[in-house]
Amino acid sequence: MPHLPHTSIHLNALADFPMIEPNNDLATVLIQSLQHNGIALETRDVVVLAQKIVSKAEGRLVRLADVQPSARALEVAEEINKDSRMIELILSESREIVAQRPGVLIVEHRLGYIMANAGIDQSNIDHPNDEEYALLLPENPDQTCAQLKSALDRHFNADVGVIINDSFGRPWRMGVTGVALGSAGLPSLLSLIGKPDLYGRAMRVSEIAFADEIAAAASLIMGQTSAGQPVVHVRGLQWEEPSNSAQTLLRPRHQDLFR
Amino acid sequence: MPHLPHTSIHLNALADFPMIEPNNDLATVLIQSLQHNGIALETRDVVVLAQKIVSKAEGRLVRLADVQPSARALEVAEEINKDSRMIELILSESREIVAQRPGVLIVEHRLGYIMANAGIDQSNIDHPNDEEYALLLPENPDQTCAQLKSALDRHFNADVGVIINDSFGRPWRMGVTGVALGSAGLPSLLSLIGKPDLYGRAMRVSEIAFADEIAAAASLIMGQTSAGQPVVHVRGLQWEEPSNSAQTLLRPRHQDLFR
Repeated sequence: MPHLPHTSIHLNALADFPMIEPNNDLATVLIQSLQHNGIALETRDVVVLAQKIVSKAEGRLVRLADVQPSARALEVAEEINKDSRMIELILSESREIVAQRPGVLIVEHRLGYIMANAGIDQSNIDHPNDEEYALLLPENPDQTCAQLKSALDRHFNADVGVIINDSFGRPWRMGVTGVALGSAGLPSLLSLIGKPDLYGRAMRVSEIAFADEIAAAASLIMGQTSAGQPVVHVRGLQWEEPSNSAQTLLRPRHQDLFR
Repeated sequence: MPHLPHTSIHLNALADFPMIEPNNDLATVLIQSLQHNGIALETRDVVVLAQKIVSKAEGRLVRLADVQPSARALEVAEEINKDSRMIELILSESREIVAQRPGVLIVEHRLGYIMANAGIDQSNIDHPNDEEYALLLPENPDQTCAQLKSALDRHFNADVGVIINDSFGRPWRMGVTGVALGSAGLPSLLSLIGKPDLYGRAMRVSEIAFADEIAAAASLIMGQTSAGQPVVHVRGLQWEEPSNSAQTLLRPRHQDLFR
């Protein structure tokens, strides 16, 4: 089965996407916003949602004043000079610390992502009465994507893809790039093993982090500042490979040279 | 200065891009292909070229029969069970070996990229008389981008961006993603330090690997197989930050937790 060529891809940020509050029904808000933007989703369209709005909808906001740091959190906080309540939250969302430097813990998140500070963010969060809040990652991004896909498929009578993205730093390279925390309806890891190259020679590059590349493309348009555009509609992608979840993008520990 | 929002981004693969041969003038071929595709470049348009066509144009094809492996190359070849002539080429293009496993050397390339096998590829290469060839990375991707930008700017009377991309594997995550080997005319690393978030709080995520995200987006459309579309035109990106080269994306060793 050939990998179909994409001739062109169009990324479009949804205009006027509303501020998301805890317990908003994200599927309903999303469908309304797509309609407001005059977009009728088609099969192979992909919708990319910023992690922050999913976390907010899931009520993953934690008031720092309510966090009681453990002895371990106090110890790590001292080591890396960071708020012990943030450390407590990071540790509670993580399987283990992979590395650390002042202000940053690189951890294995409970869902397997290797990332800074378990993805917990103090930025861009409502803070009524000037209280300090932190926003945790969604409970289960793959599951949320599957639920959103199901609602979108039903509403638009199509077979769409959904990705929740976030920005990760990387070893060796500066700056963050968009990556897929969760996905549904597309091959997150797209395997081209055994497909011939231009000269019929077997491919050497075998697997493409398809969902991460889509997540990075969407990040280009989401903006990180006051222009916040947390939902991006992608049209023009093509694939024939079966879907697999964003968990497929996690490298098994025994295959990893850098842990 | 606000970071301008992108409302939409359009990626378009150039149709009928010709096979590139050694010593082709890439700027001329590129301009002809853009014209053939009815594209008049505008300021802030970005053209992304696959590494392979730049390497080919620069004559970076090496006949393996001409490679004489050193004692060190023979030793490493034995350790990782790989063709000693390929090892010789990899070592000659590298500053040091960062890690190794069967078939793969992770090296610091002479230009600073940490990557598998110094980016040397045996796939998708002409092999007349069934001889074995390998294709090295371009001599100086940033410089080539600057030269192409200069030719494109002059021809189209615009101020465009140019990126040369390649696909890199990553620690911790499966699959390859597009990254920028070289760039010109855009902020490869886009710094948002101190810009306010939605609530006026200082940004925590400070630097975006803008050129890598563009490179990844372009990879989505380039295809890895017989559909090879090595040049992608990107329209709709916006930025105000000053340009910096793809070398800016390399993390200084002393800041790196994973070396």
